[in-house]
Amino acid sequence: MAHTAVELIEIKRDRGVLPRDGIEWLIRAYTDGTVTDYQMAAMAMAIFFNGLDGEELAVWTEAMLHSGDVMDFSDTPAPKVDKHSTGGVGDKISIPLAPLVASVGVTVPMMSGRGLGHTGGTLDKLETIPGFTTRLDSDRFRSTLIEHGLVIAGASETMVPADRKLYELRDATGTVPSIPLIASSIMSKKLAEGLDGLLLDVKTGSGASIKVFQESRALAQTMVDIGARHGVRTVALITWMGQPLGREVGNANEIRESIEVLRGEGPEDVVELTMAFGEVMMEIAGIEGGRERLEQAIDSGAAMEKLIEVTVAQGGDPSVIENPDLLPTCANEAILTASRSGFVTRCDALTLGAAATRLGAGRDRKEDDIDPGVGITIDAKVGSTVSIGDTLARVRYSDPAKWDAQRDLLASAWAIEDEPPAQQDLIIERIVATS
Amino acid sequence: MAHTAVELIEIKRDRGVLPRDGIEWLIRAYTDGTVTDYQMAAMAMAIFFNGLDGEELAVWTEAMLHSGDVMDFSDTPAPKVDKHSTGGVGDKISIPLAPLVASVGVTVPMMSGRGLGHTGGTLDKLETIPGFTTRLDSDRFRSTLIEHGLVIAGASETMVPADRKLYELRDATGTVPSIPLIASSIMSKKLAEGLDGLLLDVKTGSGASIKVFQESRALAQTMVDIGARHGVRTVALITWMGQPLGREVGNANEIRESIEVLRGEGPEDVVELTMAFGEVMMEIAGIEGGRERLEQAIDSGAAMEKLIEVTVAQGGDPSVIENPDLLPTCANEAILTASRSGFVTRCDALTLGAAATRLGAGRDRKEDDIDPGVGITIDAKVGSTVSIGDTLARVRYSDPAKWDAQRDLLASAWAIEDEPPAQQDLIIERIVATS
Repeated sequence: MAHTAVELIEIKRDRGVLPRDGIEWLIRAYTDGTVTDYQMAAMAMAIFFNGLDGEELAVWTEAMLHSGDVMDFSDTPAPKVDKHSTGGVGDKISIPLAPLVASVGVTVPMMSGRGLGHTGGTLDKLETIPGFTTRLDSDRFRSTLIEHGLVIAGASETMVPADRKLYELRDATGTVPSIPLIASSIMSKKLAEGLDGLLLDVKTGSGASIKVFQESRALAQTMVDIGARHGVRTVALITWMGQPLGREVGNANEIRESIEVLRGEGPEDVVELTMAFGEVMMEIAGIEGGRERLEQAIDSGAAMEKLIEVTVAQGGDPSVIENPDLLPTCANEAILTASRSGFVTRCDALTLGAAATRLGAGRDRKEDDIDPGVGITIDAKVGSTVSIGDTLARVRYSDPAKWDAQRDLLASAWAIEDEPPAQQDLIIERIVATS
Repeated sequence: MAHTAVELIEIKRDRGVLPRDGIEWLIRAYTDGTVTDYQMAAMAMAIFFNGLDGEELAVWTEAMLHSGDVMDFSDTPAPKVDKHSTGGVGDKISIPLAPLVASVGVTVPMMSGRGLGHTGGTLDKLETIPGFTTRLDSDRFRSTLIEHGLVIAGASETMVPADRKLYELRDATGTVPSIPLIASSIMSKKLAEGLDGLLLDVKTGSGASIKVFQESRALAQTMVDIGARHGVRTVALITWMGQPLGREVGNANEIRESIEVLRGEGPEDVVELTMAFGEVMMEIAGIEGGRERLEQAIDSGAAMEKLIEVTVAQGGDPSVIENPDLLPTCANEAILTASRSGFVTRCDALTLGAAATRLGAGRDRKEDDIDPGVGITIDAKVGSTVSIGDTLARVRYSDPAKWDAQRDLLASAWAIEDEPPAQQDLIIERIVATS
């Protein structure tokens, strides 16, 4: 059956169901340029309005994942499990989590991303370790994984090229916030990694890409169902992203905090998510022992050893892990203080993330460079009590003009009131496949 | 106020109202290439779903019409009135109508189009007259109009460039059937002609671009209201396009039938529309005398003289008007006959138009050449009684392979039944401005 892009756009525009071979042709033809960007933009907007049903979405995701190279680790018997976060502020969980679970026997072929908009990226954070490379070709990715049970890198240019094109196009055409397009983008990349299991951390709240809980839940369910259809054991946890995770926001700062966690220190929320996620990844991989075993791996230093091991394997200087003061930092420090006494009722993730990005910790456009030493250390999070003049946060920055421009925005992230805020669970819901 | 394409797309995607300066910037930036085709495609699809309100549509149309040169005939005192059809099969009305109303004193600066899809175009038809040119620069357009009170040509490349780009884009992105986009496309071109009045022939039925009556009515009302907001006296007539107009479909064939009308002959439906439209154009122009005066212009030969006059003025050979047998024709003729006796209950415009196009009378893509001699002469229209073996139509064609490929499609245009069909009015409704 022959298709034209216009016919397929018209089917979706008119609430029809796209045929399997039509979707397969469309993704192939878009990847090779036969279908133009403007036709795909019209299709993306039609999908924004009319959605994709479960079967269409499975076919769409499958077609995307097969648009380029697909990894295959079926020759290594251990179950391969990755974790993916939809992105948040101060979300460094992957960095302590991956070596922790690898140290108890989970094989982790982790493909991560870079920061864009107000959220940071695992690759940018790891690259603040001198020498650490996240650009690995598929041979080195494979050999690192087999030898160390862990590798953390960016996707190669030849994986899921359809998503690369489509993601950029969506960013320029107002078609990012579409649950089927988000779900197929994430899942096509994850399924191309040759996984057996996947933990999805779906953020909700102001600092998340999807801020409304019901939509976060719909996205989580959609992705879990795509994973199940592809035979990958997939679990999603919906977690709160109303305030930043931990005390640190910024690339070097977040590496520092990740190292604390592996030392058995670190702030409670980061430790709690790391341990909870670790338990789920062990469960997915079929590894016994649960949280107790994870705690042993931290107490014994095995988890920290695994971070040092992967750092060395990926060319990084392990001395910074033993001495985090060697990590880059900025020359200037400013202190933000409380203008009144009371309970901190808001420490807004989106505002903090946006201010950190504009100070140089992140990118507005993907061509931008980041400043690895820019960071915000938060002293007062939601539920704290503060007195007037107490430190809310300490800010490291390079460019005084940028700090002047961001000071008011940053200060607006906090609210201090007479009454304490309501309790907010960190892990809100666990989502498993419907069938 | 600064705008980005993404922000404007998001406003429309989320059912907001586009700000005036945003629309003006968008159309200007799309015309000069700052806004890309893929961004405009996403916007067009968002408009397909969420529409444009009256004020947005007026601003959008205004911005389109000012994207290029605008004609100004305010130095010629006579009221300038054009007629525009949304396109149908066998719709040659402009050709007898323009010289007819010009001969009674209406000044007609007619800008017409070419055939695309299953409908023919006035320019293609006129160009079957040897030498007749429809490519006039603005000086010659103006001087022809002033000297003869009539000119019929294509829009110059410098008029409404935003619409040229957007129309092609919509054709390739499934965003053609959007009432605000259709209305602003038509009206921006018409308003750029510097008119005082406009008659819109909005077709409805199988052979029309909009097939559903309620949608045709909505389009008519939308266009009439745009015209009124711009101070142009605009009337729309909704007319039936379930079967072709007249007996002739095809370029030279339709010129022949147009000449018949100006000779006081011609099929009833073509004559009726020509006269009814002529009356409305006289009314819009404030010219007295109505149908009686139009009939005199035909009887006296004044209307025919005006056709000859404009043909000579535009470089055409007037001898074909006196002797239409000199018009191009194809070497081969096939006859389609009735397979049973009864009443003709269907003579489907879309099917006949599509078959004629594929035989060479029209274009599937705008680069295609047309074959001026290809034509279908219809002997049995809706309501006729036929006996088995009677001629339904005679077909002129050049390429026997094409005829073989189209014979069955063409035959499927007719239905012959025992009971006569219901009566169908040719002019269904007259639409004037709401306020």
